[in-house]
Amino acid sequence: MMESVGGEGEEVVRNKQVILKDYVSGIPKETDFEIKTGEARLKVEEGSGGVIVKNLYLSVDPYMRLRMRKPQPNPSYFSPFPPGSVMMGNGVGRVVDSGHPNYKKGDLVRGITGWEEYSVITAPESLHKIQTTDIPPSFYLGILGTPGLTAYVGLHEICSPKEGEYVFISAASGAVGHIIGQLAKLKGCYVVGSAGSDEKVDLLKSKCGFDEAFNYNKEQDLDAALKRYFPQGIDIYFENVGGKMLDAVLLNMRLHGRIAVCGMISQYNMDKPEGVKNLMLLVYKRLRMEGFMVSAYYDLYPKFLDEAISYIREGKIVYVEDTVEGLESCPGALAGLFEGRNVGKQVVRVGQD
Amino acid sequence: MMESVGGEGEEVVRNKQVILKDYVSGIPKETDFEIKTGEARLKVEEGSGGVIVKNLYLSVDPYMRLRMRKPQPNPSYFSPFPPGSVMMGNGVGRVVDSGHPNYKKGDLVRGITGWEEYSVITAPESLHKIQTTDIPPSFYLGILGTPGLTAYVGLHEICSPKEGEYVFISAASGAVGHIIGQLAKLKGCYVVGSAGSDEKVDLLKSKCGFDEAFNYNKEQDLDAALKRYFPQGIDIYFENVGGKMLDAVLLNMRLHGRIAVCGMISQYNMDKPEGVKNLMLLVYKRLRMEGFMVSAYYDLYPKFLDEAISYIREGKIVYVEDTVEGLESCPGALAGLFEGRNVGKQVVRVGQD
Repeated sequence: MMESVGGEGEEVVRNKQVILKDYVSGIPKETDFEIKTGEARLKVEEGSGGVIVKNLYLSVDPYMRLRMRKPQPNPSYFSPFPPGSVMMGNGVGRVVDSGHPNYKKGDLVRGITGWEEYSVITAPESLHKIQTTDIPPSFYLGILGTPGLTAYVGLHEICSPKEGEYVFISAASGAVGHIIGQLAKLKGCYVVGSAGSDEKVDLLKSKCGFDEAFNYNKEQDLDAALKRYFPQGIDIYFENVGGKMLDAVLLNMRLHGRIAVCGMISQYNMDKPEGVKNLMLLVYKRLRMEGFMVSAYYDLYPKFLDEAISYIREGKIVYVEDTVEGLESCPGALAGLFEGRNVGKQVVRVGQD
Repeated sequence: MMESVGGEGEEVVRNKQVILKDYVSGIPKETDFEIKTGEARLKVEEGSGGVIVKNLYLSVDPYMRLRMRKPQPNPSYFSPFPPGSVMMGNGVGRVVDSGHPNYKKGDLVRGITGWEEYSVITAPESLHKIQTTDIPPSFYLGILGTPGLTAYVGLHEICSPKEGEYVFISAASGAVGHIIGQLAKLKGCYVVGSAGSDEKVDLLKSKCGFDEAFNYNKEQDLDAALKRYFPQGIDIYFENVGGKMLDAVLLNMRLHGRIAVCGMISQYNMDKPEGVKNLMLLVYKRLRMEGFMVSAYYDLYPKFLDEAISYIREGKIVYVEDTVEGLESCPGALAGLFEGRNVGKQVVRVGQD
């Protein structure tokens, strides 16, 4: 069977791409990536069923680091990016051409795409059309996307918060953390977050309505800090960090407390994770610690979306986005997540609509 | 107000006692205790409301080690035994005299008592009368007591086992472990236990009906051992051990697995517990890990007792008891728990009925 390649009248444009050079150890650096310039065709191949998308916003997320590791001896839960390939992640884009009946030129979509200017989506069933017109499309990478659903599921499905309960959130100014805190406030909880700079602490208190927040970099003793902010102890801990923070939190949980384990960003760049020593407190305090992945809860997305859109329209939730410009900014933005440079959800604007 | 002490006609007998000399660090040794010989009066003081019990069987349990530590900086969940005091624990005894309307001379009771020949129970509301006559009274320290209820609650309330699920139990030949395994078999689960000697492994397989068992002392690599016994992975882990065993188990849990944390005996003699490194697997595998203390479930005791008595009478559960003779054996029996010397529930017979 012959394929027609670059046939007559077909528009071909420049396509810059971010390539992961090799598996990464330690904190990711900009030099772990290279920017290549290739070409993209703006017409789908006849009969392919694919969709060509012009990427507008790309999402930069901590879990990506877990896909940059060498294949692990035990089953890997995030399949490694092949060295030399284009980075992949969530994005928002505009359909340029479609061979799929569900999508037409001009549709605004979100879904898994490449870190490049134009992507060919070969399985467009994974895309979702964006229907709202009054909300910035990039919100679908954050509060209305995976981070938002993660916050919603982690709080409501895993922790079942009750009014008046004491909630602690680590990495609280991150994409998930600052949403969790606001959802917990809407439930009538007392909410404290930890973050890595005074600017972030200020943001949590002044913009996101947290009752308290502290800069963990300024605390010699995390246990003492938690005792200061939670003299009565913690009912719900939303775990984004792991390691020493988890050990300190275990010391401060209340009887029948719940820990939703969403991630452990402090451990992602370590070859061997730190040991957590205070697990016997699970027994003494009858704690429940539960890991979850948002992918198991996609059926809740429509319900969540309705709720979250209302919250945004009514101004009940503030969404904090950290946007940098241009595809070339992607490597630095990813590295920045592990240095705590981002404030809120990290997004890269890669194209003009 | 005058008290009558050793009044006319009052019988006074020898009362040997086991005294904890001081707080213990490291593995408890027989020399951490001394045997003192005092006297006991066999009549309650008039108006005291207390009960005098002749102790018949004393229970020797791993949690006792946690009461032998120095007071801890963070709240202690087992109050330390005061140095120089008589050891306390569960026991079965015969009422010798009673100032309490619920008890009369001759009643067989179980409850918290002293490591001594005769004890004055000043709050007899904590005692329970033993009603059965066809079951050895010492069973009320094991399968019909706290260890049995712990197994029942841990399995049913925390793990909700389903037929055909894969269950792993560490310290499986211990007081709780060998009962859990049999309850899980009754539920139609596939059950594997680990224990510290070939004799115990043999017992689990031949007497307790475990599908498999292994001697962890003979395994270089616990992860590899678990992969051999659970090629499909583990749905339910009953945690009695902690440390390296927990890390190996986390590598082998299946999606949506449940870990009931009952205790972590490998850690009790350490000043600083070992770190557990594989907690990120809670996220990947959406695991739930839940600590519990049997004391929160005493309301289930009557239901449990009925069930367990039927199982014993019908021969559906085998109960393994390790009985040593004489109050002087108590210190060695306690030390033996941490050297894995006991096979099944450790009990000391301290008096003839």
